Order: sequence, then structure tokens, then C-alpha cells
Amino acid sequence: MAQIKAAIVGYGNIGHFVLDALQAAPDFEIAGVVRRSVANIPAELASYKVVTDIDELGKVDVAILCTPTREVEKYAAEYLAKGINTVDSFDIHTDICKLRASLDSVAKANNTVAVISAGWDPGSDSVVRALLQAAAPKGITYTNFGPGMSMGHTVCVKSKPGVKNALSMTIPLGTGIHRRMVYVELEPGAQLEDVARAVKEDPYFASDETHVMAVASVDEVKDMGHGVNMVRKGVSGKTQNQRFEFNMSINNPALTAQILVAVARAAMIQRPGAYTMIEIPVIDLLPGDREENIRHLV
Amino acid sequence: MAQIKAAIVGYGNIGHFVLDALQAAPDFEIAGVVRRSVANIPAELASYKVVTDIDELGKVDVAILCTPTREVEKYAAEYLAKGINTVDSFDIHTDICKLRASLDSVAKANNTVAVISAGWDPGSDSVVRALLQAAAPKGITYTNFGPGMSMGHTVCVKSKPGVKNALSMTIPLGTGIHRRMVYVELEPGAQLEDVARAVKEDPYFASDETHVMAVASVDEVKDMGHGVNMVRKGVSGKTQNQRFEFNMSINNPALTAQILVAVARAAMIQRPGAYTMIEIPVIDLLPGDREENIRHLV
Repeated sequence: MAQIKAAIVGYGNIGHFVLDALQAAPDFEIAGVVRRSVANIPAELASYKVVTDIDELGKVDVAILCTPTREVEKYAAEYLAKGINTVDSFDIHTDICKLRASLDSVAKANNTVAVISAGWDPGSDSVVRALLQAAAPKGITYTNFGPGMSMGHTVCVKSKPGVKNALSMTIPLGTGIHRRMVYVELEPGAQLEDVARAVKEDPYFASDETHVMAVASVDEVKDMGHGVNMVRKGVSGKTQNQRFEFNMSINNPALTAQILVAVARAAMIQRPGAYTMIEIPVIDLLPGDREENIRHLV
Repeated sequence: MAQIKAAIVGYGNIGHFVLDALQAAPDFEIAGVVRRSVANIPAELASYKVVTDIDELGKVDVAILCTPTREVEKYAAEYLAKGINTVDSFDIHTDICKLRASLDSVAKANNTVAVISAGWDPGSDSVVRALLQAAAPKGITYTNFGPGMSMGHTVCVKSKPGVKNALSMTIPLGTGIHRRMVYVELEPGAQLEDVARAVKEDPYFASDETHVMAVASVDEVKDMGHGVNMVRKGVSGKTQNQRFEFNMSINNPALTAQILVAVARAAMIQRPGAYTMIEIPVIDLLPGDREENIRHLV
């Protein structure tokens, strides 16, 4: 069977783990890596094409976008228009429907598929949330994150003027309430209060209790483990007190990368358009024979 | 928007809870109940049509099969051929692919949809299992059930000669290993050892440690609570030790019934054919506006 030709776009944390996941997958071929610059290529990319323009890679079936979240739309629209499917882990929950609508028209016009917001939250957690909503339609689901580093929030803090390096930790306070502990290494001359204000005003942080602290070295406090505790107590039909719980303890970028690779596979068999993960059958995330998967997993 | 006209086929434990779930759903109309006999109609069905032949109900969009598992195929094939979608909670794991293949041809030939094995296991658990397989492709998932009454196993025991009433309890021993504790009320003159042999030889029980005991009254030991503890430790890409856990503590027939109603909704918008739950996008299980659901759940 033909291998799926995937390009990795952006080679930060997530890009690095996507390389791992593609190498471990039985059905992918790595078309190459797209970066802003081809200087300083890391050793593990030595045997791959590293380019600044995806056109230099030849035929690409799917582009796995590992760029900062706010650059996803631009790259996705460009690649979809070129006839390349895209997947991303866009993680600004309030803007997901807007991104979906915008990419849906580009994808349909160009006979391509975009799977958006496909990390673990939004992403695989969304699938569990939707399933539990169906299993007990009345009730409340609380998604509690952490303690762990939020990559989206960390990238956001790093983009603020005066910030040399940053770490945003998510602390679960229960019932879906979180505290954000932000550790920043400041540029010379930068003022902590200016950075703190910029961070707290950003939509990523605006609705959570946020503390911004200066540290000498962010690297010394960094750990990429993360966790989720999702709970739902609800009503099935007229029967109260149905209880569900989903827990994860995971390496954050490794799971995001694995999910991206799974949806890259699924993107190959959807009809043209843009999709979130809850709109895709979970079987499409898996390699191998469909009937065998049904036999083993249903 | 037009309500979905659903018929309840079979009115035992599951049928009763399906009535609850349909009454609580915003988008269904109850076309009526199909039973073997229309004598002794329970009070809660007084305002509904109760018939022995589904044709007496007029237009039915979807038949929710609440019959014993071994009668599912017969009813589904008959109704699919009449142009009625069907959903069931067929629970013999080893025969699911066979049932799917057989109903798939009937459904496609008649432009109808069957969603099979859609309870909680097989069913909603299958969706979680497939998702975790995608999230950490290497590793083992253990699904531990109970302690709780297994309805499929109980119905199986009740079908054995000499059994007046029965209860099969599932006891989790860890790593997916279970003990079956079977309590039977014997018919006069029946021998416990004959019943025990018939039970232990049945495919439902053949691979598990099974104990069969006689009791004076099964009703006195019956409780319909059940539980699941699913665990997976696996590898995302090349990152080991990714840990996932899914727990439920639920009323068993109430959850089965709620899932059946959710897939009855989904059946209305699939292309003709037979599907297991892992082949259906979870968003299709939910009532209401698609974009609103994405906004709230992704």
C-alpha cells in the first residue's frame, strides 16, 4: 500500500515529537521538514530534506502544522489551496469555529481536507467530552488540567515584548478552575510589571487567576509532563448519578504529536472540508485493516 | 424540525430504560412499542401504541432493538428490508464483524442504516479503546468490568433448561481477567450440575472462571449498578509510559438505553450500511446545532 507522504511544518517541540511519531508509524513516509531557515539543522534531520518552501519537497499528501497556534490559519490556507491536506493543534478554544469555517471553504474549493484543533485538548479530550455528553445528556463535565506546562500558553508568553524565555504552568483548582503560574526570564531592561500586564490582558490568560514571576533560568524549572482529570456526573434517560472519569498522565508534546499523526492519516479519507476531531470516526485515526480494528477494539 | 419517529422493539429491562431516554430526548417521537404479546401492558405504556407487528405503527424512522442479543440479526434484517433504520446493543464480541457484514448488505440494498453493538461495551467503551489506541499505538489496554450484573450473560443463563431466574455477576480480577458468579433459581426437578455444565459450555462463559450457585430468590441479590475501569499504558511516538484511565460507575440498562437513543439519532444521518460506534463521528450522537456542539465540546 502507498505510504502517506507527510511534511512537518515548523520544528520546535511539537515538530520534533512529530518526527518521532512519523518514524514509528507503519504507513507514513517523511517528505521533509519546512522551517523558516535551513541553517543549524539538527542531527536527527540529517537524512531528511529541510526546506523553507513546501514546494521544494515534491508531492506532499498532508502537512502537519507544528507552528505557533496563531500562524496555523495562514499556513493551512496556503497549503490547502496547493492541494495539500493539513492538520493542526490550534488551541484557542474560542476561535475554533471561526478557523473551521475559514478553512472549510478553502478546503472544499480545492478538494482538500483540514483537521483542526487536533491535539489532546482540544482534540482527544474533545472526543471523550462529546461521548460523555451523549452518554449522560444532562449534567456537567469538568476538565481539570495539570499540574503541567501549557505549551500554547507558554508560546503566548514568549511572544510578549521583554520576554527572553517563559514557562506557563497550569494548576488544577477543581471543577474546571485553574491557576496559571507564569515563569519568565526577562530581556535586559524589561520590566516585570509590563510583561505581567501584557500576559494578563491576553485572551489566553484573561479569565484565569494568573501569577507572573521572574526567574533566572526557565530551563531549570521546565518539565513537559502533564495531566488531565475529566469528570462528569449526569443523567442517562431519567437515571441520575451516572459517573464517568477520564485521567491521563502524559508527556505533552509527545501526545500532541501522536494525535497529529493519527489525524493526518484520517485526513486522507475524509470528504473535502474542515473538521474537528469530534466530526471524524475514531477508527479513521488507526492504521491497518478496518475490519481487524473492529474485531480487536469494538 | 421534524422529530425522529422511533419504535421500541422488546420491552424488558433495556426497553423500559429506552422509553425513559426517548421521553427525555428533545428530538424524538415515540412511534410505539413492539412486543411478542399485547396482553399485560404496563401502566407507563398506556398512552403509546403497543403492537406485535411494526407495520401497525405507521411510519417508523428507526427501530431500537431491545430484544435478546441472539434475536438482533433476525429483527434488524427484517426491519432494514422494510426501509427502517435499526440500532442494537448486540454484545457477543466475537460475532460483531459477522453481524456487521450481514446487516451491511441488507442495509445498502434497502438504503437504510444499522448501528450495531451500541451499548457501553461494546459501544461507548469501544470508542474510548480506539481513541487510546490512536493516542499511544504501542501498549496494552485492559478493560476491567464490575463488580456488576452482566445483562447479556444473565439472559444467556436464563435461556438454559431448568433455570427459572438467574443473575450473572462480573467480578474484575485485574488486567482484563474476570470471574463470573452465576446465581440461579432452579425450576422444580432441575439439577444444579446440569445447569452449571450448560452455562460453562456456552461461548459467553467458556473462557472465564465461572461459578454457578443455586439461590432461593434471585430478586433478593439483584442490583443493576455496574462499573468499568479501563487502563492503557503505552507509547506515543517514541515516548514511553503514557498513561490513560477511564472509569464509570453507572446504572447498566440506563446507560445502554441512552447510548441506543444517541446512535438512533446518528443512524438518521449516516450513509446506507452497517456501522459499529467507532465508525461514527461522536458529534452525530448529539442533538442540537452542530456548530454549537463544536463550540461547547471541542
